[in-house]
Amino acid sequence: MDKKNILLLTTGGTIASVPGGDGLVPQRSQVMERELEQLRTYYDITVRDVMCLDSSNIRPEEWQLIARRIFEDRDGFDGIVVSHGTDTMAYTASAVTYMLPDIDLPVVFTGSQLPLADMLSDGPDNLRTAFAMAAAGHPGVFLAFDRKVMLGCRAVKVRASGFSAFESVNARYAARVSNRGLVVDTQALPQPRKPARLLDAISQNVFLLKLTPGLNPAIFDMLGAMGYKGIVIEAFGLGGMNVLHRGLRGIRRCVEDGVSVVVTTQCLYDSADLEVYQVGSKLLELGVIQGRDMTTEAAMTKLMWAIGQGLEPEEIRELFARNLAGEITL
Amino acid sequence: MDKKNILLLTTGGTIASVPGGDGLVPQRSQVMERELEQLRTYYDITVRDVMCLDSSNIRPEEWQLIARRIFEDRDGFDGIVVSHGTDTMAYTASAVTYMLPDIDLPVVFTGSQLPLADMLSDGPDNLRTAFAMAAAGHPGVFLAFDRKVMLGCRAVKVRASGFSAFESVNARYAARVSNRGLVVDTQALPQPRKPARLLDAISQNVFLLKLTPGLNPAIFDMLGAMGYKGIVIEAFGLGGMNVLHRGLRGIRRCVEDGVSVVVTTQCLYDSADLEVYQVGSKLLELGVIQGRDMTTEAAMTKLMWAIGQGLEPEEIRELFARNLAGEITL
Repeated sequence: MDKKNILLLTTGGTIASVPGGDGLVPQRSQVMERELEQLRTYYDITVRDVMCLDSSNIRPEEWQLIARRIFEDRDGFDGIVVSHGTDTMAYTASAVTYMLPDIDLPVVFTGSQLPLADMLSDGPDNLRTAFAMAAAGHPGVFLAFDRKVMLGCRAVKVRASGFSAFESVNARYAARVSNRGLVVDTQALPQPRKPARLLDAISQNVFLLKLTPGLNPAIFDMLGAMGYKGIVIEAFGLGGMNVLHRGLRGIRRCVEDGVSVVVTTQCLYDSADLEVYQVGSKLLELGVIQGRDMTTEAAMTKLMWAIGQGLEPEEIRELFARNLAGEITL
Repeated sequence: MDKKNILLLTTGGTIASVPGGDGLVPQRSQVMERELEQLRTYYDITVRDVMCLDSSNIRPEEWQLIARRIFEDRDGFDGIVVSHGTDTMAYTASAVTYMLPDIDLPVVFTGSQLPLADMLSDGPDNLRTAFAMAAAGHPGVFLAFDRKVMLGCRAVKVRASGFSAFESVNARYAARVSNRGLVVDTQALPQPRKPARLLDAISQNVFLLKLTPGLNPAIFDMLGAMGYKGIVIEAFGLGGMNVLHRGLRGIRRCVEDGVSVVVTTQCLYDSADLEVYQVGSKLLELGVIQGRDMTTEAAMTKLMWAIGQGLEPEEIRELFARNLAGEITL
């Protein structure tokens, strides 16, 4: 059987880090090459360096660069692996999901918690899982980590240092590595319906507001004054906010001024549901959009993308009531 | 054997909610009385209603009221149970922990995800666990939920609707209910060292900033202009922030202006550690305070409390390097 053709796009991150003077610095290393030599037994591998950044420095501009490279370089490959720092990998994987609607090959993000240069690194394992998923023929944007593969738009980094760093939140894993190899859950895969497109316009004018008790509602006026076009609110529990003592005038004014306000929950698991409690119903009356069971990463990037695509508030509201790539349960 | 004397302070929440016109509304119900009747077989119970609020409406003023009632009403009781809405219970339990240093009896917060009025409610179970912990004689501020008891300052609401709503983050459970009854882990308990005190002054001038890729650093100037005295930053991973492309001038200016800036991680588990990556080291040079493995709830309330106590920035920095009640691993 012919070997599958896999493209590896590198972007930096711990997986490529080497010890520097004051902490780990991303740097394209020989160690990655050594690791790939072993993988070439199984796959034909082409490596292209896209950038070399600590992922806490990856911005929406880099999301666009990565999405474009995936889209433009994909011809002739069976799948693409993107190595990436873990810190913001869930954001990048979510953003790239929206930027590449109906992507027609597997795109698998991965990274490591310990640099490849360390003998005990989780990098080799994670790369292998990612390559296996990239070669398995299921189109979509995925994230592979600790022998689990999840939709990019469902991934959350839940551990700062532990190897089981990512979880598929409110969604089944797309695949797992077991003693039977890579076991794919076909029910958990996205279904491309149209030809792949590149829609990489994105807005940076979205603010994430995580509520805390006693929050001064003047923040909404400030965010409006700063020109934000979207706000994602991580509310309490099912979507509760402070309504008795703190007026929601600020939110109402934002909505009236054309700012899209999406409400998610600050709980890691489960769905925001504004219809259960009186405090939530009041929010719906104000015109906020329900984030339902989307992760914060998926909601933020969906809103940034929707605004970047030039959609009007009503179109954005409608977009959030639709499932684009598995990011929301309706 | 004499029955233990337990004081139940009620504050509202789902556990006391009854269906209203547009969603559940907290309301002191007969159902709680029926439940307590059964518990009176085991304990002498005194009930006092402190307030009746959906916990998304509980503010620092209410934390003070609850702390004062615990402190002033505790004489003659073996333990205190506080029923509370789940949405902000972790914040309240953390804040009350700092407000009541060396508290000399068990104080156990609890609530439910389904109202007591529902036959399938988790309220009865949670109340029983809380009463058992309140009667077990270990001083401290705890949170009991789903047969687990944790330190109030380690609790995080991780599920918006699931019954296993709270986890003890980065710390062992203080107790669990098993087929042996309530099994307390004495290693996980706080150790009161001085007479109990009430230190309930608290500042509301603390902002929680959860980072997102591409965040406009102008936010720091805005927060300074709004008069915030403290900022808790939920950074990426081990504490990474955007330093290459986005200047940290704003943070430096905040610190120079006497604002205390604490950096924690937006990952649910593990500790922020600014010394591992270059981007983190740069933050430390700017004078930010390490939040280490504190939960966001514990870090926010510790900073609000420290500022409320009138401490100077240097004293606050020193306070964050000390473990007050089990909130931090040093």
